[in-house]
Amino acid sequence: HYLSERLSKDWIFLTACGIIMALISFAMDEGIRLFIKARFWFYNDITGDPFARYFAWVAIPVLMILITTSFIHYWAPQAAGSGIPEMKTILRGVPLKNYLTFKTLVVKVLGLTCVLGSGMPLGKEGPYVHIASIVAHLLSKLATPFRSIYQNESRSTEMLAAACALGLGTCFAAPIGAVLFSIEVTTTYFAVRNYWRGFFGCVVGASAVRLLAVWFQGADTVTAVYPTYISTEFPFDSRELVFFALTGALCGLLGASFVWVHRHYVLFIRSSTKLNKFLQKNRLIYPGMLALLISTLTFPLGTGQFLGGDISTENQLTQLFSNFTWTEKDLSEKQAKIVAQWSTKYTSIFSNLIYYTLYHYFLSIIASTMAVPHGMFIPALKIGSGFGRLTGEFVAWMFPLGVRYGNCMSPIMPAAYAIVGAASFAGSVTHSISVAVVVFEITGQIAFVVPVLVAVLVANAVASLLQPSMYESVIMIKKLPYLPDLLYTSSSMYNKQVSDFMLRDVKYIWQGITYQRLAEVLRMNKKLRSIPLVDSPEKMILIGSVQRQELVKLIEEQIGREKRMEMAQKWRAEELREQAAERRPSRFEVVPAPDPQKLSLMQNSRQLNDSLNSVHSNSEACQRSTFQSIFKNSSDSDLDLELGSNEHLQPVVSPSKRVQLIGDRVVDMSPEGKRLWELDQLSRPIDFYSASARIDPSPFQLVESTSLLRVHSLFSMMGVNHAYVTYIGRLVGVVSLKELLKAIEDINNQRFEPHAAREQQ
Amino acid sequence: HYLSERLSKDWIFLTACGIIMALISFAMDEGIRLFIKARFWFYNDITGDPFARYFAWVAIPVLMILITTSFIHYWAPQAAGSGIPEMKTILRGVPLKNYLTFKTLVVKVLGLTCVLGSGMPLGKEGPYVHIASIVAHLLSKLATPFRSIYQNESRSTEMLAAACALGLGTCFAAPIGAVLFSIEVTTTYFAVRNYWRGFFGCVVGASAVRLLAVWFQGADTVTAVYPTYISTEFPFDSRELVFFALTGALCGLLGASFVWVHRHYVLFIRSSTKLNKFLQKNRLIYPGMLALLISTLTFPLGTGQFLGGDISTENQLTQLFSNFTWTEKDLSEKQAKIVAQWSTKYTSIFSNLIYYTLYHYFLSIIASTMAVPHGMFIPALKIGSGFGRLTGEFVAWMFPLGVRYGNCMSPIMPAAYAIVGAASFAGSVTHSISVAVVVFEITGQIAFVVPVLVAVLVANAVASLLQPSMYESVIMIKKLPYLPDLLYTSSSMYNKQVSDFMLRDVKYIWQGITYQRLAEVLRMNKKLRSIPLVDSPEKMILIGSVQRQELVKLIEEQIGREKRMEMAQKWRAEELREQAAERRPSRFEVVPAPDPQKLSLMQNSRQLNDSLNSVHSNSEACQRSTFQSIFKNSSDSDLDLELGSNEHLQPVVSPSKRVQLIGDRVVDMSPEGKRLWELDQLSRPIDFYSASARIDPSPFQLVESTSLLRVHSLFSMMGVNHAYVTYIGRLVGVVSLKELLKAIEDINNQRFEPHAAREQQ
Repeated sequence: HYLSERLSKDWIFLTACGIIMALISFAMDEGIRLFIKARFWFYNDITGDPFARYFAWVAIPVLMILITTSFIHYWAPQAAGSGIPEMKTILRGVPLKNYLTFKTLVVKVLGLTCVLGSGMPLGKEGPYVHIASIVAHLLSKLATPFRSIYQNESRSTEMLAAACALGLGTCFAAPIGAVLFSIEVTTTYFAVRNYWRGFFGCVVGASAVRLLAVWFQGADTVTAVYPTYISTEFPFDSRELVFFALTGALCGLLGASFVWVHRHYVLFIRSSTKLNKFLQKNRLIYPGMLALLISTLTFPLGTGQFLGGDISTENQLTQLFSNFTWTEKDLSEKQAKIVAQWSTKYTSIFSNLIYYTLYHYFLSIIASTMAVPHGMFIPALKIGSGFGRLTGEFVAWMFPLGVRYGNCMSPIMPAAYAIVGAASFAGSVTHSISVAVVVFEITGQIAFVVPVLVAVLVANAVASLLQPSMYESVIMIKKLPYLPDLLYTSSSMYNKQVSDFMLRDVKYIWQGITYQRLAEVLRMNKKLRSIPLVDSPEKMILIGSVQRQELVKLIEEQIGREKRMEMAQKWRAEELREQAAERRPSRFEVVPAPDPQKLSLMQNSRQLNDSLNSVHSNSEACQRSTFQSIFKNSSDSDLDLELGSNEHLQPVVSPSKRVQLIGDRVVDMSPEGKRLWELDQLSRPIDFYSASARIDPSPFQLVESTSLLRVHSLFSMMGVNHAYVTYIGRLVGVVSLKELLKAIEDINNQRFEPHAAREQQ
Repeated sequence: HYLSERLSKDWIFLTACGIIMALISFAMDEGIRLFIKARFWFYNDITGDPFARYFAWVAIPVLMILITTSFIHYWAPQAAGSGIPEMKTILRGVPLKNYLTFKTLVVKVLGLTCVLGSGMPLGKEGPYVHIASIVAHLLSKLATPFRSIYQNESRSTEMLAAACALGLGTCFAAPIGAVLFSIEVTTTYFAVRNYWRGFFGCVVGASAVRLLAVWFQGADTVTAVYPTYISTEFPFDSRELVFFALTGALCGLLGASFVWVHRHYVLFIRSSTKLNKFLQKNRLIYPGMLALLISTLTFPLGTGQFLGGDISTENQLTQLFSNFTWTEKDLSEKQAKIVAQWSTKYTSIFSNLIYYTLYHYFLSIIASTMAVPHGMFIPALKIGSGFGRLTGEFVAWMFPLGVRYGNCMSPIMPAAYAIVGAASFAGSVTHSISVAVVVFEITGQIAFVVPVLVAVLVANAVASLLQPSMYESVIMIKKLPYLPDLLYTSSSMYNKQVSDFMLRDVKYIWQGITYQRLAEVLRMNKKLRSIPLVDSPEKMILIGSVQRQELVKLIEEQIGREKRMEMAQKWRAEELREQAAERRPSRFEVVPAPDPQKLSLMQNSRQLNDSLNSVHSNSEACQRSTFQSIFKNSSDSDLDLELGSNEHLQPVVSPSKRVQLIGDRVVDMSPEGKRLWELDQLSRPIDFYSASARIDPSPFQLVESTSLLRVHSLFSMMGVNHAYVTYIGRLVGVVSLKELLKAIEDINNQRFEPHAAREQQ
């Protein structure tokens, strides 16, 4: 049964994707574990000498970063960076070259393993999205039973969106959060119809990853990745919500500044041409230096002791979420051990938490400028939880007895602040609310729904007032052809109309345009991929749009070799027939079959001959000379060439041009004749209705009063690149992605320049 | 500053909505509590006599249901039912009459309080969505500062969608789940831009509701509504996933059958015309009987003891989610108390759970046919958790020692099965996945992410293969103008094209159509709200579409009193002028100013006069008689009436019609003259370009090869009701909601009739 076949295909496809992703993820995790183990083994067990230990600590990261950079530079430059901005663009309908190839997959997987194994302050969520998308793309291409999935473009986009969710699900082992996060981060409009695909993929991916952990890594069962154990009996007092909201606001500010610093750092490096040139020549110097710097800073015997440098990311997060107050006096042995890792004999936990937050804040920005695969989500989580823990410990230190509620005291739980901070900082950097769900899933606790959501909403509001999201910032830096989302609070999008930003100077062609004018239009507008067709330049009624290649084909057909040959042969044949007719009494007995097409062609050529015979003007003299040279054979025959030159000024009907047809020899025109024939051909009008060119009969159309909001919806939902503006059927303008982008930027800039806007008022 | 004003308005609006909803919800909860308390007081404390107790138990529900039914019947029939199907339709862009009025709000709130207070097996999520939407709608109308929100239609839809989420958020006190559930249930395409509004509204609503509980009902703090306390250390063994998936599949079957039974029960009652007539005459009999039946069944001394009849909904759910095995031997006192409520001396917990599940399964279907406000989500949760608990207890009874994992045994936790069952049954009834999140939030535990999601996905797959969702089923029953979603697995939607289902016999008007023909077209197609305009019936190039009322206005203008008067006066004036010209040598010195419009009108009338003077044919004779009667004064003057009748057959230029202008008296034509003048006016062609009628220059256009999927997207995203099908600019067909609905039904029916489809193959 066809339907169930299709159904099973969908879920089989997603299952296959999920299992492959889980295997890749498992292999990568093992690789990362191995690298980190090796590094600690070098550092701990080989030698006691501090310098040797330093060398051991530093060597592996620098080496691995260098290897990754070279890989990426020589093999697959597309594998660098996060991948989410690119996937946003691809899902928007703009295909990017080489982004979904096997080579990119291999380099991205190996590179990410090296980068994370080297202990750089970078994450993996972006690359996972990219990897899952490549897997889905390749799977659909390789396996025959899945091929039908990619037949339909909108379907392939849906599967790609599901793959993005799947990637995130595998990465965090947090299916629900992953689906929601991927929707928020990669799409503008979401078809609820596609919901289940994301969930299904995520559940398969997340379950497979955790089951692999259960079977091969000795994990007990499928639980949260960074579990917390907070009593759900009385998680927080309702008045603490104010503190949580404040933490959220601060995280929002920090997040916006994070995006700002990142973008301006990248732009600064780029703008300094000298530095840029030097770095481009010596591609390995910059990443090598950075890797050295970062691993030096984390050297546990040096500054690393203040940064929790020798704790793995997992342990860092689990410890930051640990449910006891670090400043308390009487701690259990286990608790004291954790506190020992976050304080030194010189510093308290407060200064260590500040160092930790600052280190990750700046160093992950700097590290992300290396051309290696990296994500920014885990670093954002770490910065946020560091900052949140700091706030929490501070509040707990301020109110050591907790908040009084009726007769009982409820103690402050710094872990709650760490969770809130992590969610709201990550939320403000990525401009997403569903990060809250991700945090619930990775901590395995949902007791803090309200505080986390309040903080995340506040952080999002603050951050989106100040800066675009990290992913959109990268899109701006990379100048990807992506349509930014309209900022939800700007009212101008409701007031701005198409007539305010459309391009009025439309290039168009019309029914009955000559081939020559068409060629001119094509030559003048090389960038246009399709050109609108109107009924006439006066009426301007839009009929449709024609692709550039179709138009080029039309011209080629009109003056192409094939048609030329055909005409040359036809006329030749006719002439031969005329010769014969001179000998015979009735010419029509010879004509094999009265093919109407042939007859019309004959008529055509006879008309031409007629017109040649009646010389009236200069232009007609020119035309005449055209057809004088038509009945030449192709230039491969010396004889014909000579004949051609002889006959150049002789009249068409002169007997000297009656050359015998020699076997199968190709009949063609002389170069001059060809030129003139082409000129004639090009001066004819095109009838698009009967021509073979495919006309898109319903290009996207707008009216002048369409609001910017609606245009944006159309462009982003339908993946449209341009739309024509009509007025009662008449073409009056065009809106392309460029114009729309500019209009949106204008509006959004009002937001990011509050001073300017205020002055305008 | 305008922008920040707008921003603040959005969130102020949502905050206001949230607080109002929280207050309403709080008041309703208090009301329900009061009713239940009163009922138990009557039942427990007044008398010991079983019959008196029975009467006390039954009286209040029957009374309240009768009151509610009368209220709804006489005041606001729109307040009956869930509200979600109607909100789906409204959000789809089809306004429903009286659904968002204050009266409906009041009746719905009071009715819901009575219904839930009477202990009917019904829920509240649907009415909450409806109530929140009304609150948002009224708020936007009442409060001046919010008025701008509803200026833009797409914005008002966004706010309404946010209000739906808010309503659910207040209902479950589960913000995230509510947002996701409302997206899944009410929309087809979702703008990620609108995400934050839903979350914000939900957080405000949910927090306010819980804070009110903290402040006024002595709740400790903001926690989950039905909290569970399951160890997160080792929640389940990975092999148990098979049991969970099986539970999901069974719940999916049960859910589909639930929807099927519900629809067929409703259709059965409707189809029996005799019964139907009787019930419509005696509106109170049916609900009264049902209330009596249901409260009799739950009478704690009778059958109620097998159904947990005297436990409140909250306690039922909390107990079903309680984390211990009910069949265990050694129970704590508290645990034993719970088990005692779920078993009698005649029955074990197994049979009680079966009775409980069956009672809720059938009785909530029957109860939902009463015309009272009700939701189906809480009943679905109860049925699901009852069934899940049953499965869990069964599994625990089968494996009393638990599942062996390595060296340790992990016991089966029936509570997990109850959670899984609740989520997957509710998910299969509503066809939503996010119900999983709702369940996590209301239980306050997220440890079972993977099992719950697996079961929900399986249940959804099974249920959507067999039946539409409950809400779509109700839409089908009520025949609301809603576009059903395409079933995600049917491949036909990719293959089916517009040309397969479009209406080829398009009614159209053309540039230059006469007023008469236009009137005919309007008369013949009374249902068309707008008519396509083409350039000519031969070319059929689509220019735009014109609203019916605009066309009617055009005709009215052409033959309306105003124009008639104007013409009558103009001609009269001209005649007077002519009279004057007869006296003066140069007429043109008298004309006050050469107003071009006047001149053309003069010319016009002179042409008419000219044509009248040259009588050629019969039709012209008719025309002539028309204008003979034009220069009559209005019928309010006796003199003129007489004149009119006298002059009827006299020639236009006869001196007898030269009547003096008497002051400001109104100049009008005679009835016969009017008729003829109208006929003449109507026989003229319309120039739509210069006419005052507003043309929609870009009605939605499709081409014949557009896929059903794309048409569906356009219709459901843009709220379009009809679209024209063009071929290279030519109008060839039309697709309206009706055709689309039929096409979708055809495809979906293939799914619901697997046998037929298989035979076709």
